[in-house]
Amino acid sequence: MKMKNIFADRMNNIPRSFIREILKVTLKPGIISFAGGLPNSDLFPLEQLQTATEKLFTCGGSTVFQYATTEGYVKLREYISARYRSRNNLYVPVENILITSGSQQGLDLLGKIMISSGDGLVIEEPGYLGAIQAFSIYSPRFLSVPVSDEGMDREALQHSLDSHETRLIYTVPNFQNPSGITYSTENRIQLAATIEKTTTFLIEDDPYGELRFSGEPKPSFLSLIPENTILLGSFSKTIVPGFRLGWIVAPPPVMEKLITAKQATDLHTSHFTQAIIHQFLIDNDVDTHIEKIVQTYGSQKIAMEESIREFFPPKVTVTDPEGGMFLWVTLPGDMKAMELFHTAIKNGVAFVPGDPFYIDRKDSNCLRLSFVSTNEEMIRTGIKRLGATITQCM
Amino acid sequence: MKMKNIFADRMNNIPRSFIREILKVTLKPGIISFAGGLPNSDLFPLEQLQTATEKLFTCGGSTVFQYATTEGYVKLREYISARYRSRNNLYVPVENILITSGSQQGLDLLGKIMISSGDGLVIEEPGYLGAIQAFSIYSPRFLSVPVSDEGMDREALQHSLDSHETRLIYTVPNFQNPSGITYSTENRIQLAATIEKTTTFLIEDDPYGELRFSGEPKPSFLSLIPENTILLGSFSKTIVPGFRLGWIVAPPPVMEKLITAKQATDLHTSHFTQAIIHQFLIDNDVDTHIEKIVQTYGSQKIAMEESIREFFPPKVTVTDPEGGMFLWVTLPGDMKAMELFHTAIKNGVAFVPGDPFYIDRKDSNCLRLSFVSTNEEMIRTGIKRLGATITQCM
Repeated sequence: MKMKNIFADRMNNIPRSFIREILKVTLKPGIISFAGGLPNSDLFPLEQLQTATEKLFTCGGSTVFQYATTEGYVKLREYISARYRSRNNLYVPVENILITSGSQQGLDLLGKIMISSGDGLVIEEPGYLGAIQAFSIYSPRFLSVPVSDEGMDREALQHSLDSHETRLIYTVPNFQNPSGITYSTENRIQLAATIEKTTTFLIEDDPYGELRFSGEPKPSFLSLIPENTILLGSFSKTIVPGFRLGWIVAPPPVMEKLITAKQATDLHTSHFTQAIIHQFLIDNDVDTHIEKIVQTYGSQKIAMEESIREFFPPKVTVTDPEGGMFLWVTLPGDMKAMELFHTAIKNGVAFVPGDPFYIDRKDSNCLRLSFVSTNEEMIRTGIKRLGATITQCM
Repeated sequence: MKMKNIFADRMNNIPRSFIREILKVTLKPGIISFAGGLPNSDLFPLEQLQTATEKLFTCGGSTVFQYATTEGYVKLREYISARYRSRNNLYVPVENILITSGSQQGLDLLGKIMISSGDGLVIEEPGYLGAIQAFSIYSPRFLSVPVSDEGMDREALQHSLDSHETRLIYTVPNFQNPSGITYSTENRIQLAATIEKTTTFLIEDDPYGELRFSGEPKPSFLSLIPENTILLGSFSKTIVPGFRLGWIVAPPPVMEKLITAKQATDLHTSHFTQAIIHQFLIDNDVDTHIEKIVQTYGSQKIAMEESIREFFPPKVTVTDPEGGMFLWVTLPGDMKAMELFHTAIKNGVAFVPGDPFYIDRKDSNCLRLSFVSTNEEMIRTGIKRLGATITQCM
């Protein structure tokens, strides 16, 4: 059977997951890897999840094992709504919350309902690779807008909105993946003023928001421009990623379309895992649990920064994340992170070169480091190796 | 903010889930409902699943709670491969199996990778509503091909293939939803001969295949035309639907695209639920468990047929399913099942009128009955009410 031209055109748009390829290389024994994006599994609350699961089997009956509503387990949606209220002073009606199979599915559903081929879609530069992949399926015209330590470049955003019919603006305003930066309050207010006048939606993807080690929380776009904001949340970074549970907060007209799309896509997300997470959340002190993650990641981040100061050549610059999992390194001048990568692997240390975080840029001189998946001793050894590699390649 | 025209064109194609609307009506107290498509939750193996889950928490470590491979839990894929070998004498390499969040997600992924707007897609008439919804997102040109007691109309299929560039042929050859019919061996061989010469894929959706109460198993299309067949399987009807676990069997070039699409869509399906199901499967006698379902559904089906013979007017015809969950009723002449529905609700009995199972037919004189979600006494009472309603409306 001939296999040519049997696939939909949209499949030509999707970049292969470069990170997936890279991770294979970094699994070689002896390599200290800062490449992965995995949370630290030592911090998974397994005992408490076990207790929650036992309770569910004992008292839950068969309902959570049956087909269920597309919107998600109502008690979990009520919990999410209540937590936004108590923690962020945000009023989010339960009806505006849809449970998804991880935030990644939120991106797929939003692409599905919003993006016709050629529609403008603003993406951060550098931006989250998973979002680029998810949206690529729907063949948008990607409009890259740079982000820096202050947030998204407002003038560049305005220029993009003026020049193309733009459906969506994708952002990770807290501890961005890959750069670790956080949009300042002033930047958020300015962006909100720009977007408020349009019919464009801003996606506020917030998987790391609760993982803040320093500084003050910044206002959510949902509080600034509620009618233009679609907020994505996730339990992957605060509880466990393996349950694949996230959620979308969206205004009613968008939610109606999302529910139709979710039903067509997979009927609903497992109510069993939703009920376990809910039981865990109501039976435990979640803030204390999250504080433990924050303490650990915060110390690891300081360890990495100290080692960088000690071992990297002075011309290398790094971002200073106030939370999350990643920091972003800029190499001097025209050094190519991709070339550095191959030498680094030989020297026993791995990272993700910057290229895949850009829509159409090659030979980036930037790279992403995760500070959460290795302990502090390994961080020091790994950064020492990386510093030596940079000096060697300069 | 203006909400006009903010959604992608593709969202105009999706039929609202009529069944979803109908199910709301049928939940009124006092109504005996044959409308739902839910498996009987009394047959869920909850104790064994609890044991499997405890084992996983005790011995499994943190791996199943971490991010994992897109393809799915390898031990579960190995089990599925081995069961095809032992039960169906089919050789399915592990590499050709992708775990999905239910079969419904399999349909979404196949639409995603295969269907460009306007591509031909053959759908059974009547056909599975969930498939129509899933594929509608990708704006195919639906080509309805009638099915009858013998299977799919070969000449009509040939005509469709001749007249349009056709990517996919969607079938449920065993105990079809909604009609309950099974394609005969001869029909399968004829269809295979027709399809083998083309570059069209046949989707063999087989959620009910193991639920056979009578007659002999028929050869899978995978054994007849392996290069043209994409097989979908599910644990929803044999274990529990609430875990949302299914799988796709596809040849390598298709699998490569499916993995790319699956990763972009939700990274992977929960490995936690996959590992529980795997533990359940290896620790228990699965055939004995399934036999219990078959016995129960088989008795319920006989009870329904006997009541139909007793209470329906003689001009009404019904299919004679050898397995599965549904049977299909054809009312005399120009009776409209939709009109019957409203009277039936008043008389305390519900079903799904035929209309939503057709792409563009209204006023169907057919309707679907599920025989699995009510006990035999209720079946008798409900069919008596329905028979009286039909007589009343004739």
